[in-house]
Amino acid sequence: MKTLKVALLGCGNVGSQVARILLEDAEDLAARVGARLKLAGIAVRNPDAPREADLPRELFTTDAEALIASADIVIELMGGLEPAGTLVRSAIAHGAAVVTGNKALLAAQGHDLSALAEEAGVQLSYEAAVAGAIPILRPIAESLAGDHITKVMGIVNGTTNFILDAMDTTGAAFGDVLAEAQRLGYAEADPTADVGGHDAAAKAAILAALSFHTTVDAADVHCEGITSITADDVAAAQEAGYVIKLLAIAERLPAADGSDGISVRVHPTLIPRLHPLASVHGAFNAVFVEAENAGQLMFYGQGAGGRPTASAVLGDTVALARRLVIGGRGRTRSHDVTIPALPIAQTTTSYYIGLEAKDQPGVLARIAQIFAAHGVSIETMRQTTHPVADGSGDSATLRIGTHRGPEAALAATVAEIEQLDVVTAVTSVLRVEGN
Amino acid sequence: MKTLKVALLGCGNVGSQVARILLEDAEDLAARVGARLKLAGIAVRNPDAPREADLPRELFTTDAEALIASADIVIELMGGLEPAGTLVRSAIAHGAAVVTGNKALLAAQGHDLSALAEEAGVQLSYEAAVAGAIPILRPIAESLAGDHITKVMGIVNGTTNFILDAMDTTGAAFGDVLAEAQRLGYAEADPTADVGGHDAAAKAAILAALSFHTTVDAADVHCEGITSITADDVAAAQEAGYVIKLLAIAERLPAADGSDGISVRVHPTLIPRLHPLASVHGAFNAVFVEAENAGQLMFYGQGAGGRPTASAVLGDTVALARRLVIGGRGRTRSHDVTIPALPIAQTTTSYYIGLEAKDQPGVLARIAQIFAAHGVSIETMRQTTHPVADGSGDSATLRIGTHRGPEAALAATVAEIEQLDVVTAVTSVLRVEGN
Repeated sequence: MKTLKVALLGCGNVGSQVARILLEDAEDLAARVGARLKLAGIAVRNPDAPREADLPRELFTTDAEALIASADIVIELMGGLEPAGTLVRSAIAHGAAVVTGNKALLAAQGHDLSALAEEAGVQLSYEAAVAGAIPILRPIAESLAGDHITKVMGIVNGTTNFILDAMDTTGAAFGDVLAEAQRLGYAEADPTADVGGHDAAAKAAILAALSFHTTVDAADVHCEGITSITADDVAAAQEAGYVIKLLAIAERLPAADGSDGISVRVHPTLIPRLHPLASVHGAFNAVFVEAENAGQLMFYGQGAGGRPTASAVLGDTVALARRLVIGGRGRTRSHDVTIPALPIAQTTTSYYIGLEAKDQPGVLARIAQIFAAHGVSIETMRQTTHPVADGSGDSATLRIGTHRGPEAALAATVAEIEQLDVVTAVTSVLRVEGN
Repeated sequence: MKTLKVALLGCGNVGSQVARILLEDAEDLAARVGARLKLAGIAVRNPDAPREADLPRELFTTDAEALIASADIVIELMGGLEPAGTLVRSAIAHGAAVVTGNKALLAAQGHDLSALAEEAGVQLSYEAAVAGAIPILRPIAESLAGDHITKVMGIVNGTTNFILDAMDTTGAAFGDVLAEAQRLGYAEADPTADVGGHDAAAKAAILAALSFHTTVDAADVHCEGITSITADDVAAAQEAGYVIKLLAIAERLPAADGSDGISVRVHPTLIPRLHPLASVHGAFNAVFVEAENAGQLMFYGQGAGGRPTASAVLGDTVALARRLVIGGRGRTRSHDVTIPALPIAQTTTSYYIGLEAKDQPGVLARIAQIFAAHGVSIETMRQTTHPVADGSGDSATLRIGTHRGPEAALAATVAEIEQLDVVTAVTSVLRVEGN
């Protein structure tokens, strides 16, 4: 039986589990591949740092380039743009098959790296980069290769789903839940990448590129986080039969001139409680896919964590290794098309708007008039009144749901309503999907 | 650009959609494959029968063998064992790559056909055979190839899920809902294959074989249908926080002697209402997978219908065609192991039992004693009393949930309880999963 040398770059949470499984499960992996997978070494900055798994000291090295030079398969789990990018390029140049879970690198340079790999005739796989253990990239790229994906909506960040789910369940405020999530290890000390939506945006770019056979610049992803979501937003959503989720959305839409465009965006989103994505709780991830023939699909599982992510890395590794054993090139990218990414203003969405207004005759009519002037169609309107704290009379709370319409018109409607003298405050504006 | 000739065998619900897409979408498919996919012909029994899609009459032929002889790719969508089996063998012998959605053929002869295809160095794919549009076989065989699947539980028959979901929602009786399902086209005039669990059993055999890298004889699948499920069962399940689903279950379990075994079974099952499978409504399918490292995964989508199933067929077709374009053998099966299928009596399950007993002192103690004598541990017990119709006094309704235990002990416990003079009737015995 042949032996394939595996070089592991990085040995954090995921890397240490990958190393452990390569060592502990060597026999089963060999049976599945038809060749032995030999962990040749693990490149790290500090070989003496404590690791999650108990790994032989002699495997560690600081010389990543030397390790790569003799490897058949390189697994990159360092994260970040550099030195990961240089080392992945080096692996491709040496003719090694590459597995990476580095979403930042892929979002920024995935297209270039894929082109390099194809040119060199080597395989490049990155299932672990989006939604951890969930097989989503392979189904999109292969199982749905004979269909047309029209829309992808994913809960692809466990931290924000944990926070929003806890706010939904307990009614607590964002700050309190974030602090609890940090205490439990679900959120990092600096939670910006998660709660700001940036982690989800990188994954949205990768999902969109694969789904639509195009290239997506990470800078083209419209990104809103969840930091401004209040307990009131959550309560209002519940009342209306919705739950708030941070969604990474990639959607094919006609541009204003009728040509084809895609919208790639991350924002807090109201989805109906009966939608499959609504039942994704805690730190779980799920990706909902709509395709012309397949219809609605959903893929659900653990989106992070050492062992689940290692499972995805090893799935890629076994697939690449099998191909090395049986010979022939790895699968090629489907031929690229270029579809422009539309700015958020050119997308089609629907809004759910909360506002406070003076409780006096004619207010509703003036608000409704602004919607009509912008061509925005109101689907639902609920009004309740309550006394104002300073005793000056009653205030009206309005909740307005719109039909789908041009985002620019919706935004302009809200901006104009905010200027109305009878409107005290627009308290919440959230987009709605899945109706 | 190269042209690959595609022979289509069968032109029913799915076949006509596959033909339509091959014709209408030729340009996009060519871009994804890197070669043109030319529909060379469609073999059917009666070329003049009415079809769902509007297809050129000259494509039809009754000479399947002649069509196969000149094809690069053969898509078999005839269903049934013969002549499908002979034609698939013929395609393999001619060196054509084969796509099939024929679950009956695969459940009965999948192992032989895979071996034949491997020997001949040709590709054989059958994603459409299980759960229609849902990409499930590829994720199991490839994405999870570096993990160990421990259990698969699938809602893989849309008809029975439609019926059970309607019973759960409306409280109606099985017979009434079945009649309505037949009227709406969700159930066939002869519903035996669906409601008897046989369709799900064939899919369970395919799922188990792929998940555990072994061979599964369709005759080893324990199969119970849903015909005996009553409105009372459904109501009792609701009261206890469960929903009843027909599940195809494949599970790795230690045999009595401690060696490895698998249990492959289909039966109505109580699952907790918060379990991801509980929110699979109507005719939708879903497959829940547990793996050692990945943890819990679920794949959800449409399990039947012409267009969704055609999506899966075309996914396979594009993947096989790409491989033909870039050269090299198709992926090989992972090396087989032989794991014995355990009879249902040797599996581990838990029961939820409903029974009627005389409302007199000591009854509960006698029942509890029988559980204890068989080593079966009771998890929950609820008792309510109600007057007997003939006015002879009160009757006690008992609902007993057990912990997981050996199926044989659970069955023996129920058999002995049925013999108790104080027990009027055991009204319901259902297995529980997902706790």
